Amino acid sequence: MKKKSLPTILITNDDGITAPGIRNLVEAVKTLGKVIVVAPDKPQSGMGHAVTIGTPLRMDKVDIFEGIEAWQISGTPVDCVKLAVDKVLHHKPDICLSGINHGANHSINVIYSGTMSAAMEAAIEGIPSIGFSLLDFRFDADFSAARHYVTKIVSSILAMKAHKHLLLNVNIPAVPLKKIKGIKVCRQAYAKYEEDFAERLDPHGKKYYWLTGKFLNFDKRKDTDVAALEKNYISVVPVQFDLTDYTLKKQLEKNWTIV
Amino acid sequence: MKKKSLPTILITNDDGITAPGIRNLVEAVKTLGKVIVVAPDKPQSGMGHAVTIGTPLRMDKVDIFEGIEAWQISGTPVDCVKLAVDKVLHHKPDICLSGINHGANHSINVIYSGTMSAAMEAAIEGIPSIGFSLLDFRFDADFSAARHYVTKIVSSILAMKAHKHLLLNVNIPAVPLKKIKGIKVCRQAYAKYEEDFAERLDPHGKKYYWLTGKFLNFDKRKDTDVAALEKNYISVVPVQFDLTDYTLKKQLEKNWTIV
Repeated sequence: MKKKSLPTILITNDDGITAPGIRNLVEAVKTLGKVIVVAPDKPQSGMGHAVTIGTPLRMDKVDIFEGIEAWQISGTPVDCVKLAVDKVLHHKPDICLSGINHGANHSINVIYSGTMSAAMEAAIEGIPSIGFSLLDFRFDADFSAARHYVTKIVSSILAMKAHKHLLLNVNIPAVPLKKIKGIKVCRQAYAKYEEDFAERLDPHGKKYYWLTGKFLNFDKRKDTDVAALEKNYISVVPVQFDLTDYTLKKQLEKNWTIV
Repeated sequence: MKKKSLPTILITNDDGITAPGIRNLVEAVKTLGKVIVVAPDKPQSGMGHAVTIGTPLRMDKVDIFEGIEAWQISGTPVDCVKLAVDKVLHHKPDICLSGINHGANHSINVIYSGTMSAAMEAAIEGIPSIGFSLLDFRFDADFSAARHYVTKIVSSILAMKAHKHLLLNVNIPAVPLKKIKGIKVCRQAYAKYEEDFAERLDPHGKKYYWLTGKFLNFDKRKDTDVAALEKNYISVVPVQFDLTDYTLKKQLEKNWTIV
């Protein structure tokens, strides 16, 4: 009888291949399968589901994770997943993991996040995928609790026969391991950013603008990711890529006539 | 009694402010309200929901639409909507229109499309929004049928008391006006791109890759946008930005335990 081979685990992120978060993700899962890293060669936060169309991509092998095949790509997180499948693996991995992101990707962040878009690209492709984010932006963030739960979650998803389009958005509170109360399956909170562009003058007296924004959560119910994180739970939001609003669809079908 | 003022119509796109598609959109709706254009200064196709974080943005007034205030922005379509609300209008417009895109944004394209991401950003912000796309990539595409229906659809949405998060993905077949059979409210077809990166060698013998891909529609049912367009209907997909997969959420809540 043929021995069951180890699962192939594709790892990417949006903070770039040299970020501590991706190193911690590799460490957390490297004993669970054959890990291959294909990640951006520079920070790509906020790139959402961008793909690179107008310029070609470079792909270079790097030697930064001991004993792990790794490639850096000159494009977006979504480019990385596409190139990984087509030009590195030449087949679909068993699972795709993205992160661990430095900073929250709960609620509306799922739309802007390169971390989650990479995971979504894999899920569209038919690869079960999980995006992980730690609620700590700092370079020297403590990933030890996150690592502990990443190992548990990935083991559990590999053990179940996960649907090929499974996509999870996992956010981890920035507290020590013993303070984490457990894992909660949640829905995406309705929240948004209130923009407030910082206006500056260049040396020639011409204006330029920096994007800044305040996170506003309008969703006070208890079943959201934001609510779970506030109580020191790890939030897990199952994510879909069928964006059809079926409620509005019904309403329009019933009431909307164009004359 | 105060006369009801004209609605403010914010227009953007992802092909850039000089594309024929946006000019046709302006022409189609300029009598329906006070139009203001805030659009990218260069093509931004495939930018998805990317925002510009690491570099500042420039915003310059331009004089290319007769009698219409217009600004070009050095960022993404989503940046344009954010800057338009915060730094040009200083208030929310009554509606945001994006396009008319040169090329289809049906089915899975909604995820990659800068056109639709700009409209989604406005909808998140609480501005009813519509993205328009014509199924013709060419610079000299015939927008006359599209214009006819854009006027009808925008008038109709302005006339109803649209929900502030209303978001429609409208695709228009590339056929003459008399061949268009009408408008169909649809759901997003399940389709994807099969990647096939074109591999080239630079003059130094080093590889680089161009993203190419074949569109594959796996969804053969009749209620999809792809099916409607094939029959020369205009497809209208209502779009949401709550990405929670509620079916999978229920399953996980029931069956998933992490040990």
